Amino acid sequence: MKIRLLTPGPTPVSPEVAAAMAQPMPYHRAAAFKEVVLRSRENLKWLFQTTKGETLFLTCSGSGAMEGALVNTLSRGDTIIVVRGGKFGERWSNIAKAYGVEAVNIDVEWGKAVAVDAVKKALEQHPKAKAVCVQASETSTGVGHPVKAIADLVKGRPDTLMIVDAISALGVMPLPFDEWQIDVMVAGSQKALMLPPGLAFVALSAKAQEAMKKSDLPKFYFSFAKELASQQKGETAWTPAISLVLGLDVALAQMKAEGYEKIVARHHRLAEATRAGAKAMGLELLAPESPSDACTAIKAPNGIDGQAVVKEMRDRHGIIIAGGQDQLKGKIFRLSHMGYVDRFDILTALAASGDVLKRLGAKVDVEKGLAAAEAVFNQG
Amino acid sequence: MKIRLLTPGPTPVSPEVAAAMAQPMPYHRAAAFKEVVLRSRENLKWLFQTTKGETLFLTCSGSGAMEGALVNTLSRGDTIIVVRGGKFGERWSNIAKAYGVEAVNIDVEWGKAVAVDAVKKALEQHPKAKAVCVQASETSTGVGHPVKAIADLVKGRPDTLMIVDAISALGVMPLPFDEWQIDVMVAGSQKALMLPPGLAFVALSAKAQEAMKKSDLPKFYFSFAKELASQQKGETAWTPAISLVLGLDVALAQMKAEGYEKIVARHHRLAEATRAGAKAMGLELLAPESPSDACTAIKAPNGIDGQAVVKEMRDRHGIIIAGGQDQLKGKIFRLSHMGYVDRFDILTALAASGDVLKRLGAKVDVEKGLAAAEAVFNQG
Repeated sequence: MKIRLLTPGPTPVSPEVAAAMAQPMPYHRAAAFKEVVLRSRENLKWLFQTTKGETLFLTCSGSGAMEGALVNTLSRGDTIIVVRGGKFGERWSNIAKAYGVEAVNIDVEWGKAVAVDAVKKALEQHPKAKAVCVQASETSTGVGHPVKAIADLVKGRPDTLMIVDAISALGVMPLPFDEWQIDVMVAGSQKALMLPPGLAFVALSAKAQEAMKKSDLPKFYFSFAKELASQQKGETAWTPAISLVLGLDVALAQMKAEGYEKIVARHHRLAEATRAGAKAMGLELLAPESPSDACTAIKAPNGIDGQAVVKEMRDRHGIIIAGGQDQLKGKIFRLSHMGYVDRFDILTALAASGDVLKRLGAKVDVEKGLAAAEAVFNQG
Repeated sequence: MKIRLLTPGPTPVSPEVAAAMAQPMPYHRAAAFKEVVLRSRENLKWLFQTTKGETLFLTCSGSGAMEGALVNTLSRGDTIIVVRGGKFGERWSNIAKAYGVEAVNIDVEWGKAVAVDAVKKALEQHPKAKAVCVQASETSTGVGHPVKAIADLVKGRPDTLMIVDAISALGVMPLPFDEWQIDVMVAGSQKALMLPPGLAFVALSAKAQEAMKKSDLPKFYFSFAKELASQQKGETAWTPAISLVLGLDVALAQMKAEGYEKIVARHHRLAEATRAGAKAMGLELLAPESPSDACTAIKAPNGIDGQAVVKEMRDRHGIIIAGGQDQLKGKIFRLSHMGYVDRFDILTALAASGDVLKRLGAKVDVEKGLAAAEAVFNQG
């Protein structure tokens, strides 16, 4: 059986990236690798859409970079505002708690985007808040939060940072770092960047770099100042995941060759087709109003276990998708359309999930779903 | 030109491991990957030589695991004793400082092993010290510290932990975790484990796990308790470096097939041959009295720049070795014999470094060096 990976991380690795990572191991202190580090930094700036900010990579998962975003910019006793509308929103709060930072949580129903007014109110109630933390794409619910509108609230406040988890959003949705005046944005390798997990990426505004000088939270491995000073010279503070960095170099070259606008448009088209297909099939989306273009969360029809859909997709068709987490477990299944994914993968995912749902007893019109998705691809 | 990697990290990756890592990306929450996690945990127990302790892996460099070793077992204001005889000894102190832990440093001349009496005295002067931190192999100087003798001093003290950096020693030198009563031992993937960098490994004694319950230093990504609870179920706290974990599975299987005693004997033989060859050639070792079997630091002969040796080795012969760091820069060059290395690699390294030294004007007898190394290989 052909195996196809359509989980919202990890995502498929392109053959060119896989080949780059299988090269004989180079020495990370050699001149050739320094060039890779310097080039990656510049190409990350392109992907983050920043010329004024700084970028760096870390050897860790996206959660490590989230921790880094807080411990490098905050001090003990600080207050931050957290948009908490899913598993990853919770993570901001949990990190803050671990470091003695008070998180004011804006709790949002899982599947909904935060209301910009709620953030505005929280900022009014907590004018000394040192940061607003939000997911650009909340992977657990398939929701896209209104990053630009929130950044607009934050940008006039000299002591408040706009911190964005773009782990499953960088290279998927437009998030122009400089233009929107984001201060810290973190991303992961195993999403739109088409790499295995193990690397995380960070962009830092001038405002964030100023905040770093005042931060007193303890840090060592995740010290952005140390890592940035090293990477500006083509070095790394600690031995990096060399093979993944070699893959990153190829992945970023592939993305640059495709072009930023085209990458964003492709992801949007894939997501639109997935949503149109699912709806035409007779299914309901978890986040119809503010969907993320990274992955689509589809409600399991009444009486059907979302986990059974995941299992049947795998056992019957070799297609690996994700179910719901925590309070959404069994209630949804998630189709990813991030990274090394094209229109035919979407048709495959829709056809297979429709087939599985029919077998589980749901009334779905797979032909109609496929036609609706294909119609999206055939638009203009 | 054939390129050969003989740096003390990264080390060469075996073709079987490279192939495993180039597999199409699996989902880390699938049953097959859970089996890999559980098997890796068991095989790590074998490599750490522990049945009573626990093991886990982390997605980070060895330095991340060193940070984890301290932040999971200590509290703010604690005192620890650090053996500081090289770049990695300094790292223990620097991590402690970042977290408000007082490090009592036993400064040891770079190239020498710590005197056991100095540790004994430090423990007498600081009876409340919560840990003794030492490198089993100080990679920057090629020194092996007397881990067993130090562990013997610590084991009777209920409130003091024996913390060992075995990053370049696990799978090289005998470090039986249970037998020597070590409490926390950390290792890295890019050394004897024949993997690219990006994973680190930890073993924890029951005493260390008790200390973890009292530790109040902040931690999130590096929380051993969280990671251990996950890995006991075949999961991971955060998305792991999946491709490296697939490589780990193969590397540990290869090591088990070779056998623990044979691995240790092979590394010792390779190291002995390197040392005998260098000496017979007319060269001086930096650490003749207490050498590590992981890598051999050779003094650059009078009037010759150690960095020139490194450069010529690479440019003329395609052999990548390391020079000295910090205060040893230019004074030494280091030949590694860790991991996927055999006797012919040692002859190659000796022949090439002898050739380069001659060209740089040193008086060395390469033939005699090769004969001495070969004689070691031909012993019993």
